[in-house]
Amino acid sequence: MQRIERHASFGGWQDVYEIESATLGVKTRVGVYLPPQAIERPCPVVYWLSGLTCSEQNFITKAGAQQHAARHGLILVAPDTSPRGEGVPDADGYDLGVGAGFYLDATQVPWNSHYRMHDYVVHELPAWVEANFPASDARGIAGHSMGGHGALVLALRNPGRYRSVSAFSPIVAPTQVPWGEKAFSAYLGDDRDAWREWDACALIADARERLPLLVDQGLADEFLENQLRPELLREACEAAGHPLELRLQPDYDHSYYFIASFIGEHLAHHAEMLRG
Amino acid sequence: MQRIERHASFGGWQDVYEIESATLGVKTRVGVYLPPQAIERPCPVVYWLSGLTCSEQNFITKAGAQQHAARHGLILVAPDTSPRGEGVPDADGYDLGVGAGFYLDATQVPWNSHYRMHDYVVHELPAWVEANFPASDARGIAGHSMGGHGALVLALRNPGRYRSVSAFSPIVAPTQVPWGEKAFSAYLGDDRDAWREWDACALIADARERLPLLVDQGLADEFLENQLRPELLREACEAAGHPLELRLQPDYDHSYYFIASFIGEHLAHHAEMLRG
Repeated sequence: MQRIERHASFGGWQDVYEIESATLGVKTRVGVYLPPQAIERPCPVVYWLSGLTCSEQNFITKAGAQQHAARHGLILVAPDTSPRGEGVPDADGYDLGVGAGFYLDATQVPWNSHYRMHDYVVHELPAWVEANFPASDARGIAGHSMGGHGALVLALRNPGRYRSVSAFSPIVAPTQVPWGEKAFSAYLGDDRDAWREWDACALIADARERLPLLVDQGLADEFLENQLRPELLREACEAAGHPLELRLQPDYDHSYYFIASFIGEHLAHHAEMLRG
Repeated sequence: MQRIERHASFGGWQDVYEIESATLGVKTRVGVYLPPQAIERPCPVVYWLSGLTCSEQNFITKAGAQQHAARHGLILVAPDTSPRGEGVPDADGYDLGVGAGFYLDATQVPWNSHYRMHDYVVHELPAWVEANFPASDARGIAGHSMGGHGALVLALRNPGRYRSVSAFSPIVAPTQVPWGEKAFSAYLGDDRDAWREWDACALIADARERLPLLVDQGLADEFLENQLRPELLREACEAAGHPLELRLQPDYDHSYYFIASFIGEHLAHHAEMLRG
């Protein structure tokens, strides 16, 4: 591991590391915010999963999350959104390949050579974090758009692994919308039954754990009706009796201005759930 | 004027406009944050001047200032750092020409054709703001690095025009450091007496108004010793009896992570001074 950025931030440190990931088969970057409390004691960790086109930089520069992590004593870990670099397959378009890993483990050639973001985020990344930083094993997960999908799916697929989950503008039903259909066809192939294992709305029906979901969705979001469809999440949660706080926010769009406006409330929610 | 971005942000609106500036002789972009209070009443305005290489985007995306403006009822106006576009002279290097206007009115060919950022920020921009938005005539000014120089110099050169001023990591004595020497030689020519009119430390000696200065400077700032030299500001203020609160912040660097960490305190200072 190599530290490639370090900035003092709200009494703590916003760092960026480059690590060699065995799971992804490439070097990958990750933002780590260490709050001031991490000097004295192990802190819970919130993993943040970003959306299409993003790297580890978007969240750490634009979300304004550090101040809240510093208040609550949370470590924030922000991985890249896909493998990238030499030998990593890519495709035309912003919504497949590099910058668009969809937090799943690809089964199809050529994607299955490197695209294992689920395995990386759920296993290798926390093992690295917990070995190298004053991190407790209390884990939360959150994300935006494709990363909101990632947060919901990773929490639902891995009961017991996360104590808190929240999402901004998530792709809640990728098997039913264009972004998901394109990505899942490529990464997972034509068998739509296999897609359901990576679809939050589908997973909720059979969830073994009823972790409460906090979701914010802007009503001026340009992707609301075609790609995000929060009403499908509401229906799935109602049918399964899964606890959901879905907040529809008038005027807000799909940008980091939206995330910044409510990240404080999300991190307060995580802090409450992660309290030992 | 044309609105080219609008985002809901902390109950208000982060907008970006493109305006035709007669002073600069080109179209120029400006970020305007309207806090929720602006729906009901005129609000004071804080002008933010960014540093070298920046456009209107850096501050509005990275500083996390909107939450504080929303709390205090402040309009935030973030202009570009220079003219730019067809016909605007430029130079090699990041520290002269486009992105490096230094908030002065150039006297030398070819720069005097467009580089009049002082005139634009002090006169044309506030006239446009106060004509088009619910803005009171209570004005504050703040900035970072080259923009910190701009904030101090504009306030010192224009007594009565601003009620509050603050700076992060300002170039306090451009006549004595490499960035300033390069820029002033080009924009103002070889007569070093003329340079003193654009140097905060020189202006403080003869200031007709003793507006208190709030300045934050990170001690891990890579430009501290060669370009910023806050001790010169302290000496100038002590010699002139000018009120200065200079805060030296251990560990902080020159980045927006530093600005984000303390912008809340700066805007609280402005709000206090601007209260009607």
